[in-house]
Amino acid sequence: MAREASAILLAAGAGTRLGAGRTKALVPVAGRPLVWWSAAVLAGIPRIVRVVLVVPGDPVAADDIAAAAREAGLDPVVVCGGARRRDSVRAGLGAVERGIVAVHDAARPLADAELYGRVLDAASASGAAVPAVPVADTVVEIRGDEIARVPDRTRLRAVQTPQAFDAELLRRAHEAADPGWDAPDDASLVVAAGTAVRLVPGAAANRKLTWPEDMTWFEGRLAAGRSG
Amino acid sequence: MAREASAILLAAGAGTRLGAGRTKALVPVAGRPLVWWSAAVLAGIPRIVRVVLVVPGDPVAADDIAAAAREAGLDPVVVCGGARRRDSVRAGLGAVERGIVAVHDAARPLADAELYGRVLDAASASGAAVPAVPVADTVVEIRGDEIARVPDRTRLRAVQTPQAFDAELLRRAHEAADPGWDAPDDASLVVAAGTAVRLVPGAAANRKLTWPEDMTWFEGRLAAGRSG
Repeated sequence: MAREASAILLAAGAGTRLGAGRTKALVPVAGRPLVWWSAAVLAGIPRIVRVVLVVPGDPVAADDIAAAAREAGLDPVVVCGGARRRDSVRAGLGAVERGIVAVHDAARPLADAELYGRVLDAASASGAAVPAVPVADTVVEIRGDEIARVPDRTRLRAVQTPQAFDAELLRRAHEAADPGWDAPDDASLVVAAGTAVRLVPGAAANRKLTWPEDMTWFEGRLAAGRSG
Repeated sequence: MAREASAILLAAGAGTRLGAGRTKALVPVAGRPLVWWSAAVLAGIPRIVRVVLVVPGDPVAADDIAAAAREAGLDPVVVCGGARRRDSVRAGLGAVERGIVAVHDAARPLADAELYGRVLDAASASGAAVPAVPVADTVVEIRGDEIARVPDRTRLRAVQTPQAFDAELLRRAHEAADPGWDAPDDASLVVAAGTAVRLVPGAAANRKLTWPEDMTWFEGRLAAGRSG
């Protein structure tokens, strides 16, 4: 039987790039607040026995997000996030027991149970695992306004969430990291702490919804799925 | 007055990832073959005085692509592409005069005249310029099935097309490159030849349509634009 695990669902972001003038997790998409979709997936994964929902400091937004998660079938522990992603994860870790924990961005509503399963299995075996997909664009390193280096694209991967870790290992990585570093994700923190991170196949559809047209894309995808 | 330029429009790709079982440039999107959209943009840029359309070897597909480009208002020189992207560009370069040439993937229908203008101006000044956008995901370098290195995301950019170059400089870069290298784009070839490549701001909307849901996204965006 699959090992039980916890999850931290990050819903504290401002959503500035969405231009919606509101908390990202509450932006309506296909008739639901964005966070509802990620919460509904988590509610359908039996091995995830504890969910910590990280919400913004604004109490009205926090209440609405928690209500949406409950409507999606979750019964989460709700904690208040911080200014940076890593502060929010740290806050969530405070409510997590020992064992494996998956950290997920609420803005990726198409991470499904199968993807969670792959990541949790790999983290159970190795301590740290993240989903990754090939990089579609050519990615370059810059110096000023010129290209400094073109890394071999076949050796690049775009890392997604959910990312899963042994909770103690992740806590130690957060404690060890330079406090001034605005780490983009937990994999970066764990790698910086010198720990190996296993890659498992991600999913092309598991995009982070960032721009207004991403919402349109998601709605189109849902509509196509319903008719298909 | 802006300097005159040529453009190479690459429409020789197979579109395997689209699963449409047909040439990518001919996949219908919002009522037109995909290539129509990129061709229509080029037709509306007066400084681009010569367009070389690179088509697949299959004569039926080639004819249909050329017809779509003409319907969009282009009067292109049509040449047959090769197995790899670089072979197709090389074929296109054979039909290009001296001066600045923009190389563009037909699968990016949302590169607009303003973006072409930025890239062409920068290439006129510096010899080589490409549009680039910040990278939304965490991109890592791998070794086996583990993360080997996490480059600083603030120094990464995703490179798009159109990419513009002095045609002679681009020809020399193609000739100098290791013949076995399946270079992902022309910027990579030019950097490998030791030439500086200027970066100009790309556009978030200027995505390469790769997966079936990208088509849905593009159609949603067109629909939103029409109603807005």
